[in-house]
Amino acid sequence: MKQVTEIQQLKELIAQYRSEGRTIGFVPTMGFLHEGHLTLVEKATKENDIVVMSIFVNPTQFGPGEDFEAYPRDLNRDARLAEQAGADVLFTPSASDMYKGEQNVAVHVKRRTDVLCGASRIGHFDGVATVLTKFFNLVKPTRAYFGLKDAQQAAVVDGLIEDFFMDIELVAVDTVREEDGLAKSSRNVYLTEQERKEAPMIYKALQQGAELIRDGERNPENVIKAVTGIIENTSGVIDYAELYAYPELTPLETLNGKIILACAVQFSKARLIDNIIIDIDEWERS
Amino acid sequence: MKQVTEIQQLKELIAQYRSEGRTIGFVPTMGFLHEGHLTLVEKATKENDIVVMSIFVNPTQFGPGEDFEAYPRDLNRDARLAEQAGADVLFTPSASDMYKGEQNVAVHVKRRTDVLCGASRIGHFDGVATVLTKFFNLVKPTRAYFGLKDAQQAAVVDGLIEDFFMDIELVAVDTVREEDGLAKSSRNVYLTEQERKEAPMIYKALQQGAELIRDGERNPENVIKAVTGIIENTSGVIDYAELYAYPELTPLETLNGKIILACAVQFSKARLIDNIIIDIDEWERS
Repeated sequence: MKQVTEIQQLKELIAQYRSEGRTIGFVPTMGFLHEGHLTLVEKATKENDIVVMSIFVNPTQFGPGEDFEAYPRDLNRDARLAEQAGADVLFTPSASDMYKGEQNVAVHVKRRTDVLCGASRIGHFDGVATVLTKFFNLVKPTRAYFGLKDAQQAAVVDGLIEDFFMDIELVAVDTVREEDGLAKSSRNVYLTEQERKEAPMIYKALQQGAELIRDGERNPENVIKAVTGIIENTSGVIDYAELYAYPELTPLETLNGKIILACAVQFSKARLIDNIIIDIDEWERS
Repeated sequence: MKQVTEIQQLKELIAQYRSEGRTIGFVPTMGFLHEGHLTLVEKATKENDIVVMSIFVNPTQFGPGEDFEAYPRDLNRDARLAEQAGADVLFTPSASDMYKGEQNVAVHVKRRTDVLCGASRIGHFDGVATVLTKFFNLVKPTRAYFGLKDAQQAAVVDGLIEDFFMDIELVAVDTVREEDGLAKSSRNVYLTEQERKEAPMIYKALQQGAELIRDGERNPENVIKAVTGIIENTSGVIDYAELYAYPELTPLETLNGKIILACAVQFSKARLIDNIIIDIDEWERS
């Protein structure tokens, strides 16, 4: 695995790969890798000649009160894991190279951001879309890999690629889960023993909601009521439990088409998010 | 010359050119071509294997009070002129294809826009940068050509390409002038006979300002005073006459480096703009 920090060096590598006609899979991350990231790399290695992973803790997607400085970093461990998972290039640019001088332009995300986690993170997705535009132009990927655990981020990237006619295939990868169904997350270690026992109820609640829809329920309120009823049996506090069209993230009066059922639950020291995406039309056809 | 309206057809053409390793020169326009545009095409033909011109009157760069509907259009004449000048592809997409559905993202231009013509055209350069991002991703040009008559636009595009790491060479082409020095413009026909006689004074004034700088003047106010003094001898009303660092478009206390001396003059029915860009360091070295 090549580890690259200089933008010029990355450009030369990418130019070489492209001149050789090789396909490039790209896995952008903020590092501190867990199994979710590595699953993306493994999938990317199967579908592309070359896999580039970036590790960059992007300052512009952190709000004033957020934890940019405290965000966990462990490059040595990350490099070992990325190489084991099959990455060919690990790109770790500096913030001063990615944002050289005063910035003239930024991407503004106008839709898909005012619900779910985006509602309380003003400007977060502008920062995400801006840095991804930079990375996409540098890495020139054939395919870019995003985990569906952050389904809102995947929806924003989908809009970015589509509206700007970026020649990139977005590959949205299913959430990796523990055996008991809990979505894998770096934050799970902050759960108390008792909370860790309760946390799988989040996914069970979402599955229960999906089951209701499969059985014919088309009123979003009834589905949400069932989901929150189950999560309320835990010691976690529901931040949101919502249902939207996906990837548009617009509200639905009657459930139809592709939808997302998503929630965020605050435990004593960890805020967990999870979601299920369902294609109702597909269910109805099958 | 191939005339293409469908985005999918353009994508296939570009993919073919790129797989053949051909360089692509791109001349984006809003049509109603004049000699300025054709000079860009001619230059592009000399420097690239393939030249793509786009004609697209971009709705998002017109403000509420501006003349989007009234903007002159003459596609048949334009196509003839583009072909004569050497364009290989004329891309004329529809607005509904370029802005398909409700837009999720836009480029926001944060700098270089609050002076010169940008000061009175809020949002104009956001529209320019957004549509160019779309075009750049579709056309994938090796080089993109812009006239320096609209030097602020060239500065914004320079910032867009640099900040987003677009793999495109910006070619800024000198303003094409009449024999008496008047910058060529579609708007010159709106000048009265008397105004047409006076209009070359604008460029003479800018040249006089440049001459002062060459002779050692480093105080921007003194240069501006000299320029406005000359233009005030015409019947035109000065909208602005300003001096900035170029392409940053930031004010200078003492003139140094690369600078732009620019003005806008309102005649009875035509508002004319012109500018001179000077590299003082280069002068001092020579």
